[in-house]
Amino acid sequence: MDDAPVDERVAALEERVRLLEDKLAIQQLITAWGPAVDTGNSEAAASLFTEDCVLESDLSYLVTPAAVAAMVLGEGHQALIHDGSAHIPATAIVHVDGDDATATGYTRVYRHTADGYEVWRVSANHWDLRRTPDGWRVVRRIAQVIDGGPKAQELLGRAVDR
Amino acid sequence: MDDAPVDERVAALEERVRLLEDKLAIQQLITAWGPAVDTGNSEAAASLFTEDCVLESDLSYLVTPAAVAAMVLGEGHQALIHDGSAHIPATAIVHVDGDDATATGYTRVYRHTADGYEVWRVSANHWDLRRTPDGWRVVRRIAQVIDGGPKAQELLGRAVDR
Amino acid sequence: MDDAPVDERVAALEERVRLLEDKLAIQQLITAWGPAVDTGNSEAAASLFTEDCVLESDLSYLVTPAAVAAMVLGEGHQALIHDGSAHIPATAIVHVDGDDATATGYTRVYRHTADGYEVWRVSANHWDLRRTPDGWRVVRRIAQVIDGGPKAQELLGRAVDR
Repeated sequence: MDDAPVDERVAALEERVRLLEDKLAIQQLITAWGPAVDTGNSEAAASLFTEDCVLESDLSYLVTPAAVAAMVLGEGHQALIHDGSAHIPATAIVHVDGDDATATGYTRVYRHTADGYEVWRVSANHWDLRRTPDGWRVVRRIAQVIDGGPKAQELLGRAVDR
Repeated sequence: MDDAPVDERVAALEERVRLLEDKLAIQQLITAWGPAVDTGNSEAAASLFTEDCVLESDLSYLVTPAAVAAMVLGEGHQALIHDGSAHIPATAIVHVDGDDATATGYTRVYRHTADGYEVWRVSANHWDLRRTPDGWRVVRRIAQVIDGGPKAQELLGRAVDR
Repeated sequence: MDDAPVDERVAALEERVRLLEDKLAIQQLITAWGPAVDTGNSEAAASLFTEDCVLESDLSYLVTPAAVAAMVLGEGHQALIHDGSAHIPATAIVHVDGDDATATGYTRVYRHTADGYEVWRVSANHWDLRRTPDGWRVVRRIAQVIDGGPKAQELLGRAVDR
């Protein structure tokens, strides 16, 4: 048991509980991308990001939530939804530092086909996140396709270097 | 630091910690479905549900834990186990409201084949859960195959609308 | 609200928060295997294990972190990285008992091919873990390929029997 005064113990607990809540909220935020984009809900997808957000990937470079929404409504993404898609991030490695955080992990996109399902895309992902008055939001998301190339490895390395 | 009396701060912490415990317990409950059904343990699979449970999907409509157990022991499921299967739910979006909760997410079933593995099924899932004296249990699980149709999208939309 | 003295309530909270932190740390430790081995970082992969660790699977039997590092640097694993790989564990069923813990779950390895991706391997996994001065580490990891055989089912059964 701790010998510290009870108010100090309570203050320490408040900090630890907040960190647990933050980590859980960040995993949930990352997870929410899937249901948003797989249902074509461009507003919900855009709402995960800050106004100054950047989404950078081997496929596109999007700035602002409006660009995210436009991507969801675009032809390529709509074709994916029409076939049937599931964007599923893996559990990410999350580090919180006050009101900033990073997360690193994988995302898979499964796509329905005439024969069943294909694993359509596997990417490495790195998220920069910020605590806002409305909760955690994504400031920057970088995604690189996993194909043996160095870009995905560099992103994944960020989880390991910590 | 908080200026509230220490017993109020402790009470607030107790509530926050309980919510974290609930969310974790619900993710673990959902996860336990995989090892139960992939080992053909019908009793373990049935024990995840309340006595008044309903499992509704594009494949079947099961009422009561006994019907869940019978499904696990049925011919179709036994063939899947014989080949080698892995039922893996993704992290779900979980909302707790006192002694009730909902969870929304995806489940994948991987099936061993002569050539390796196929993604045999990807479904959208919505769970209604209830706190019981024995811990959280599933009251209703709806699963809809992801194939571009509206039913899976309606389920996934429940994660987004909150 | 609780009628217990406030210092007892704080002590109970400290224990509950520690358990939540432990469970989260263990999921993160398991997750860190992917970025380590997919980037060929043999040192990072080895650092997840205790000095007396054993990694047992249908593919190999490795003793000590040095053997883990050698596996990462070996020909078979390097070929996998060269193609592009993603080792993704599912959420595990975790039980903590003081300074020891167990985790049971699935891991998938996705491999980039000329045509897209294959699900190259799906395995059942059981981890024994120990709290060390540097945090949680893996003492023993058993992995068995899911192919309908009894070995994977025995491992998965450990999640269910608790």
